Amino acid sequence: MDLSLYKPLRYSYGFDEVAIVPGDITINPEQIDIAFHFGEMEFPTPILASAMDAVTDPRFAIALGKVGGLAVMNLEGVQTKYEDPDEVLDRIVHASESEVTGLMQKVYSAPVKDNLIGDRIAAIKKGGVICAASVTPNNAKRIGPIAAEAGVDILVVQATVTTVRHRSKSYHGLLFSELCDMIKVPIIVGNCVTYSAALQLMETGIAGLLVGVGPGAACTTREVTGVGVPQVTGTMDCAAAREAHFRATGRYVAIITDGGIRTGGDICKSLAAGADAVMIGSPFAQTKEAPGRGYNWGMATPHPALPRGTRIKVGTNTTLQQLLFGPSSRTDGTQNLTGAIRVCLGMVGASTLKEMHNAELIVAPSIKTEGKIWQMARG
Amino acid sequence: MDLSLYKPLRYSYGFDEVAIVPGDITINPEQIDIAFHFGEMEFPTPILASAMDAVTDPRFAIALGKVGGLAVMNLEGVQTKYEDPDEVLDRIVHASESEVTGLMQKVYSAPVKDNLIGDRIAAIKKGGVICAASVTPNNAKRIGPIAAEAGVDILVVQATVTTVRHRSKSYHGLLFSELCDMIKVPIIVGNCVTYSAALQLMETGIAGLLVGVGPGAACTTREVTGVGVPQVTGTMDCAAAREAHFRATGRYVAIITDGGIRTGGDICKSLAAGADAVMIGSPFAQTKEAPGRGYNWGMATPHPALPRGTRIKVGTNTTLQQLLFGPSSRTDGTQNLTGAIRVCLGMVGASTLKEMHNAELIVAPSIKTEGKIWQMARG
Amino acid sequence: MDLSLYKPLRYSYGFDEVAIVPGDITINPEQIDIAFHFGEMEFPTPILASAMDAVTDPRFAIALGKVGGLAVMNLEGVQTKYEDPDEVLDRIVHASESEVTGLMQKVYSAPVKDNLIGDRIAAIKKGGVICAASVTPNNAKRIGPIAAEAGVDILVVQATVTTVRHRSKSYHGLLFSELCDMIKVPIIVGNCVTYSAALQLMETGIAGLLVGVGPGAACTTREVTGVGVPQVTGTMDCAAAREAHFRATGRYVAIITDGGIRTGGDICKSLAAGADAVMIGSPFAQTKEAPGRGYNWGMATPHPALPRGTRIKVGTNTTLQQLLFGPSSRTDGTQNLTGAIRVCLGMVGASTLKEMHNAELIVAPSIKTEGKIWQMARG
Amino acid sequence: MDLSLYKPLRYSYGFDEVAIVPGDITINPEQIDIAFHFGEMEFPTPILASAMDAVTDPRFAIALGKVGGLAVMNLEGVQTKYEDPDEVLDRIVHASESEVTGLMQKVYSAPVKDNLIGDRIAAIKKGGVICAASVTPNNAKRIGPIAAEAGVDILVVQATVTTVRHRSKSYHGLLFSELCDMIKVPIIVGNCVTYSAALQLMETGIAGLLVGVGPGAACTTREVTGVGVPQVTGTMDCAAAREAHFRATGRYVAIITDGGIRTGGDICKSLAAGADAVMIGSPFAQTKEAPGRGYNWGMATPHPALPRGTRIKVGTNTTLQQLLFGPSSRTDGTQNLTGAIRVCLGMVGASTLKEMHNAELIVAPSIKTEGKIWQMARG
Repeated sequence: MDLSLYKPLRYSYGFDEVAIVPGDITINPEQIDIAFHFGEMEFPTPILASAMDAVTDPRFAIALGKVGGLAVMNLEGVQTKYEDPDEVLDRIVHASESEVTGLMQKVYSAPVKDNLIGDRIAAIKKGGVICAASVTPNNAKRIGPIAAEAGVDILVVQATVTTVRHRSKSYHGLLFSELCDMIKVPIIVGNCVTYSAALQLMETGIAGLLVGVGPGAACTTREVTGVGVPQVTGTMDCAAAREAHFRATGRYVAIITDGGIRTGGDICKSLAAGADAVMIGSPFAQTKEAPGRGYNWGMATPHPALPRGTRIKVGTNTTLQQLLFGPSSRTDGTQNLTGAIRVCLGMVGASTLKEMHNAELIVAPSIKTEGKIWQMARG
Repeated sequence: MDLSLYKPLRYSYGFDEVAIVPGDITINPEQIDIAFHFGEMEFPTPILASAMDAVTDPRFAIALGKVGGLAVMNLEGVQTKYEDPDEVLDRIVHASESEVTGLMQKVYSAPVKDNLIGDRIAAIKKGGVICAASVTPNNAKRIGPIAAEAGVDILVVQATVTTVRHRSKSYHGLLFSELCDMIKVPIIVGNCVTYSAALQLMETGIAGLLVGVGPGAACTTREVTGVGVPQVTGTMDCAAAREAHFRATGRYVAIITDGGIRTGGDICKSLAAGADAVMIGSPFAQTKEAPGRGYNWGMATPHPALPRGTRIKVGTNTTLQQLLFGPSSRTDGTQNLTGAIRVCLGMVGASTLKEMHNAELIVAPSIKTEGKIWQMARG
Repeated sequence: MDLSLYKPLRYSYGFDEVAIVPGDITINPEQIDIAFHFGEMEFPTPILASAMDAVTDPRFAIALGKVGGLAVMNLEGVQTKYEDPDEVLDRIVHASESEVTGLMQKVYSAPVKDNLIGDRIAAIKKGGVICAASVTPNNAKRIGPIAAEAGVDILVVQATVTTVRHRSKSYHGLLFSELCDMIKVPIIVGNCVTYSAALQLMETGIAGLLVGVGPGAACTTREVTGVGVPQVTGTMDCAAAREAHFRATGRYVAIITDGGIRTGGDICKSLAAGADAVMIGSPFAQTKEAPGRGYNWGMATPHPALPRGTRIKVGTNTTLQQLLFGPSSRTDGTQNLTGAIRVCLGMVGASTLKEMHNAELIVAPSIKTEGKIWQMARG
Repeated sequence: MDLSLYKPLRYSYGFDEVAIVPGDITINPEQIDIAFHFGEMEFPTPILASAMDAVTDPRFAIALGKVGGLAVMNLEGVQTKYEDPDEVLDRIVHASESEVTGLMQKVYSAPVKDNLIGDRIAAIKKGGVICAASVTPNNAKRIGPIAAEAGVDILVVQATVTTVRHRSKSYHGLLFSELCDMIKVPIIVGNCVTYSAALQLMETGIAGLLVGVGPGAACTTREVTGVGVPQVTGTMDCAAAREAHFRATGRYVAIITDGGIRTGGDICKSLAAGADAVMIGSPFAQTKEAPGRGYNWGMATPHPALPRGTRIKVGTNTTLQQLLFGPSSRTDGTQNLTGAIRVCLGMVGASTLKEMHNAELIVAPSIKTEGKIWQMARG
């Protein structure tokens, strides 16, 4: 018997395993258009901020929107559960290590106050920027219309893994096609990492797809459950679905790589793998503008029975301006992210993000691991 | 000459080299049946405890049985060699590093007392749970019938490597078909890692197969002798044999991955590779209920000439309840193991362990190694 | 859909991933000719020094030329921006960590003084050695003719990535064919890593090609932008282009591997991959003769918005003589580089560098990483 | 153009990358014959000691011979250059770090005294054991006959890389066929790692072949020159040559894996890869019987211009008896090497070393690296 037939194993790749090959033509970075085109909307900065309470609040959403990006506000977190979210964030940030998990489990068990949904969206809209907000699939049909009513421009429906079909006793599975009909704003759904699930989601009429399930070391989903797909392979497979869907229907669904991105190099690899934009959390949490006061935590951290991830001290070592546009005071790729995108596209010879999808990727020995070992040997 | 023909080398994979791909459908964790069906028996918790003296004694077997799992008692260890095994365990635990190997070699050179076999089995049965107990192949025909007589429900015959054919001058090789005829209880045999050996063992009439020879870093068999197969490949090959045997005979033999499992993710990967259940040692040794008092050691440790493994201080940082059902106070996947199984199957869209056998696995860069390097660089 | 078709990923290899296979014949090291033949010129030592301000000044260029190698002087650095470059180098070297980036950004913003171009070239020529000097592509047409006028023997045109086609609003892209016509000295262009870009560059009439874009851990281009190709694959691909170009035109363009080389073994692997010579920076910066006074920095370090790399203290632990010809006081391959080349070619059975191109390379587990881990575990 | 055609890269494997698959039959370790058959001679212990001055002197050769192994005495080291080699060894061992390289270069520049060749061989023969001694290729024709005259039983001709054809101005290349005619004792030649070089050497009439060029981390040949082949691939390729030679001529040439072996597992993998015996150095240097007094150094260490390797403190933590036959006080595979071979062959179901050649090897994730990282993280 040919044992390889029982369960064929495909190889997959993350950011640290690939590199981008320079092109046959080079372009001056200043001449490159890095805008993210999303339906009728255009974002000059193709970077979204995660729907995490330590990353996005109305002030941060306005600040990021003003510089061309898009922050997604979590409609089921402290912003909509508490009249005074800053006070709650203060408590989380100042809790001791031993108290913090218990405190967060308590804080997040509070119900969403419907009136606050509208208040927060209004606050963002008042800032003159596009407003995106997120809900979980099981609350999408209830909270979604409230948000739409309040003027949200983009609705994000997000869970660890999202599919078209969901089996549940406690509530009816969310039909995305119904939701798309119900709410007349573009819907972004996530997260997803496979060709077939992406294709099925696209067929429901959604406008964008978040890619990323257990992508890397920072994501405890993979250690706890074994489930995960490295981001380069996940992005490539979902981008292949986008191409197939576009050929079949003429409708272009945006692919947004979400999770595990730490440097400009990681962003560029996402774009080369087929992403139209990226979503990042921790890098934004490190800006002085972020509501997390130098801390960050995932939305699975307060899970009552199977918490994943912890409150992490990330520090506030930069500003939104420096993070996105430089000048960089660091040489490790963690600042001036749009500068890195421009320089990369220039070396590849891509004048737009769409052209960047044609960049060649190679599997290359991980420089990060090597660098770390070096650093350890010296430090 | 094509040099690759001299000795073709197949690639193999362990837990750290693979990840599970989410499915096209998701299921609420509460709706998932994770029971291990073993012949007529059903274990709601598909986790067995190793036949190690630091893991399983009658008290532990009862405690695990009550919560739906199955502990295997070693019939050739301190429980059957000593009237008062707790006194012996105390001595092993309190021995100094320099004394412990010598002490263990002395302790384990004592003979098995036949009357204690019945006593220990009776103690477990009195607790109202299913009783499983293990013997080595060369003592199986002598001790097995005594155990059966005493009411054992499942007999485990276990050595480092077990095959149908064994050549020996000192005793006749064990014929498993004879043993299956002789003892009218289901027999689980191990350990095995190859398709052909698994198929031969299944043809003798056994009910279950333990998979795992020198699976990983914790197992010194591989460093000392070079022999070993990483667990994902071992499990997949034996599962392929199970399918072939089932197609040929209609008889379903359970595959139980044994060795090297440390997290919920490892368990889920075993199930995706084709396991019907898993056997773990050290995680149970770390519970307050275990007889090892915060220590663990393998049954090859007291080998008189070629000892493998040592007494390891594992600590008692959890309870059986928390280990298996949570709530987890840790985020590294080492607690709430059944919760992890449920969440994983939900993401994969498998409603039973049998459906989980269809999950897709990919080869993915090791997150554990990367995580460790990180941790070292920071700590 | 076959997902591997969306974006096929080729594997690539760096120095640490390959090893050289010994040959069927061995040769005494003394009988081996390791000269680098470049057009009419012949360099007994096939090693070039980088156009970095900490590596090459006129004194160093003369010293290396005298022992058979070739140093390339940077015509857009401190040597041509300042009358007294030594004073500037002193300031850079003695700046504190916090001042150095700002100081370098200021120092390098000064304009090139045309009269100094001729002065520096004249100084090198006066030493009786071949003079090579480098310019960036956007200044090539202006500075190149001045350098040619001053008697430069070889002009190097170098940017991070260089292609035949460049799109820019601010200046006209450099046409290498025009430059080759304009300046009647051999032109070496770089850097390049792909077959097609190399072939296009060769067709413009250039005499040599520098290979290396983001080759390894030391190069922050790859961390910041994701762009890079490991050196063995980059060298092999460009060497394949050289062979194709030679077959088509009869013209032989030299391939020079530039970047990431630290040991004699790295040099030998470059030659086995198809290089005609190598260019190194840091090893030369460590010699007592180098202008960097024990420090080194890349030409991307003073970038105003996206600095890459930093000033690194490399020490001055050797001399040019010992580095190139031994005797070695170290056993890690960092001294007696030509001795290492001779011994390697002897084991491979190659009597010239051209014969070395036929050496067999294998993919072998990285010994460096393993060695480092060992060292850490012990040290 | 298909770039993979320019220089195809084969994958190679060392001890840490493979594992041995258990067989379909198991055998009691006591029933296994592990003898190394070498022509008419039979060595019950299939382990040779390296021709290193810190490993083999007449006393050690007798001690190893008495327990069934074979030590090879270096005929061009301190034993034949000095009347009183112990005094010289004392000086090397007691030299400071800064003096030792210079001292060794001086010590080894002394000429071989022909009369001492006979004296040392006679001393070994007097001990009643088989005497093997080594020479370098360029001295083989001069020293070889003297050794044969003195009664040597096996002549070893060894250089870093040995081939049938050697080009040199300073002396005529050694013709092994002439040497085999000239000296009527079996000749073992090394080192070699490729199929074609092995086949050519076998055709000259030699009796055995040493396999190993730059095999691993401990060997600086690979760092200095880039040349090396990992031992499993090297052994497999030379064993394939042995099979081809045997089919063509009926003559069986022994394959002896030499270099990089540290544990019983490494020995077993060599045997599974096709070796008839192994040669080890450092493990023997660590025995109380070794002349190195707890130190070891390679024969390339005193090289005047390109020294490779250094004097390493290995300690004397075991005895010859314990190293080879146990009982082991360690669980890392570094003691009771013959016990490890027996246990391994028992698990594989091989009753002789020849049957062991049929064992299956798999490529498996390195447990040593992982173990080391673990150890570091904890220690």
